[in-house]
Amino acid sequence: MKVLVVLAHPEPRSFNGSLFQVSVNELKAQGHQVKTSDLYSMKWKAEIDRTDFPDLATDARLRVPYASRDSYTTKSLTEDVKIEQEKLLWADVVLLHFPLWWYTMPAILKGWVERVFSMGFAYGVGEHSDKHYGDRYGEGVFAGKRAMLVVTVGGQKEHFSTRGIAGPIDDLLFPINHGVLYYPGFQVLPSHVVYQTDRLDEAGFEKEAEALREKLRHLDSIEPIAYRPQNGGDYEIPSLTLKPGLEGKNASGYSIHIREGGVAKNE
Amino acid sequence: MKVLVVLAHPEPRSFNGSLFQVSVNELKAQGHQVKTSDLYSMKWKAEIDRTDFPDLATDARLRVPYASRDSYTTKSLTEDVKIEQEKLLWADVVLLHFPLWWYTMPAILKGWVERVFSMGFAYGVGEHSDKHYGDRYGEGVFAGKRAMLVVTVGGQKEHFSTRGIAGPIDDLLFPINHGVLYYPGFQVLPSHVVYQTDRLDEAGFEKEAEALREKLRHLDSIEPIAYRPQNGGDYEIPSLTLKPGLEGKNASGYSIHIREGGVAKNE
Repeated sequence: MKVLVVLAHPEPRSFNGSLFQVSVNELKAQGHQVKTSDLYSMKWKAEIDRTDFPDLATDARLRVPYASRDSYTTKSLTEDVKIEQEKLLWADVVLLHFPLWWYTMPAILKGWVERVFSMGFAYGVGEHSDKHYGDRYGEGVFAGKRAMLVVTVGGQKEHFSTRGIAGPIDDLLFPINHGVLYYPGFQVLPSHVVYQTDRLDEAGFEKEAEALREKLRHLDSIEPIAYRPQNGGDYEIPSLTLKPGLEGKNASGYSIHIREGGVAKNE
Repeated sequence: MKVLVVLAHPEPRSFNGSLFQVSVNELKAQGHQVKTSDLYSMKWKAEIDRTDFPDLATDARLRVPYASRDSYTTKSLTEDVKIEQEKLLWADVVLLHFPLWWYTMPAILKGWVERVFSMGFAYGVGEHSDKHYGDRYGEGVFAGKRAMLVVTVGGQKEHFSTRGIAGPIDDLLFPINHGVLYYPGFQVLPSHVVYQTDRLDEAGFEKEAEALREKLRHLDSIEPIAYRPQNGGDYEIPSLTLKPGLEGKNASGYSIHIREGGVAKNE
């Protein structure tokens, strides 16, 4: 397979940076083709702004989605963004490696999403009718591809459990897994999360490295999270609310958007 | 009162940028002292990296939290970060104005949090014992201050409702309200959210501007979201899991962290 591995950590010698290297090495050892986007090494520009749209008239009001669509359509996006879009189109699988900072991904990775997931490319595509509300949530440019988060967390696992004060880790990652990855069509694998990485010694790292390698050996067969496709009949259109009675007895919050009996949780 | 108004939008003429101006003007008209952080105008650097810690030895491994704590302690953080920390200490109330991009705040604002909320300042503070797990979630440097999000959303309100495909807006904003603001001690007011801002005309804007002005007239009396303090007896220490039986019958997911009968929802 072709795998794109994205890293958002400023220190290659960090636990997170080391796990990134584990992924790259293991995937190559398995015979996969690998490309990488090491955002800090690339000095990735995080802020989306006027300079992203060189063709936008100096005095024109910047409307980010439409400027993004126009520049994507006329192939006038900046070179760094075009290269990332090409890598995403090339890949069968995309891994996002990042530390959980303030309960979500680092700014530099958020800015990669904002700048690379252009309108007309990753959103704002497909037919809009009374049966189909655009190609999104299960459809879209990345349909047929898989994606997985590899996340390191400083805190304890219990703090991110069902009753933990930080909120359940699957809920914290839902806006990324569902809103950023499933939205433009990826099948999303349960996230690979490692806790208390600051406390782990060399042996602890090796154990975690091996757990990740084992996961990477099954990238093509791991069951994706069973999110409900937007246009598959489960949602009213155009309100996009889940039709009554579809969710299980104990489902609430985000989990109503996962089909009963499907894979829901990270392990 | 002293109010800090933060803006994370690249276009002053946008709906969001215009609402920011409404806030600034209205607060001044009410006689409050106002400072602003217009992140795009300030060319705010979003990525936290080695250059944030000028005293870090060139060959030292960058461990972000500890580098941040050391630089904060020795007052060697960069000038832009120090200025923002001073503004936060000065303010009685902080407003964060931003558009919802990919279901959370823009990268530039996330990077403001990462760089300004240093260890030793906004986290990693307070006594750790078997009764007290640091000053956080209701305690910390910003205790006694209030904060509120002012969020513009392109999509329809229904998509962000309890059964909406995007997930409930209060859940999407929980990592910011609870994890970024309540964590270092802010009392968090229910978020002010405006939907389908791309579709609103001049009259629609004026109606929304007036709704925001009305809210701003009551900044000091609006009931904060009733999050449970970490060290108030509701959580086990050190697992920080909510003790059994405290949540209401219908509470689940994030909502178990809000006290029964307290204010939970944005309006």
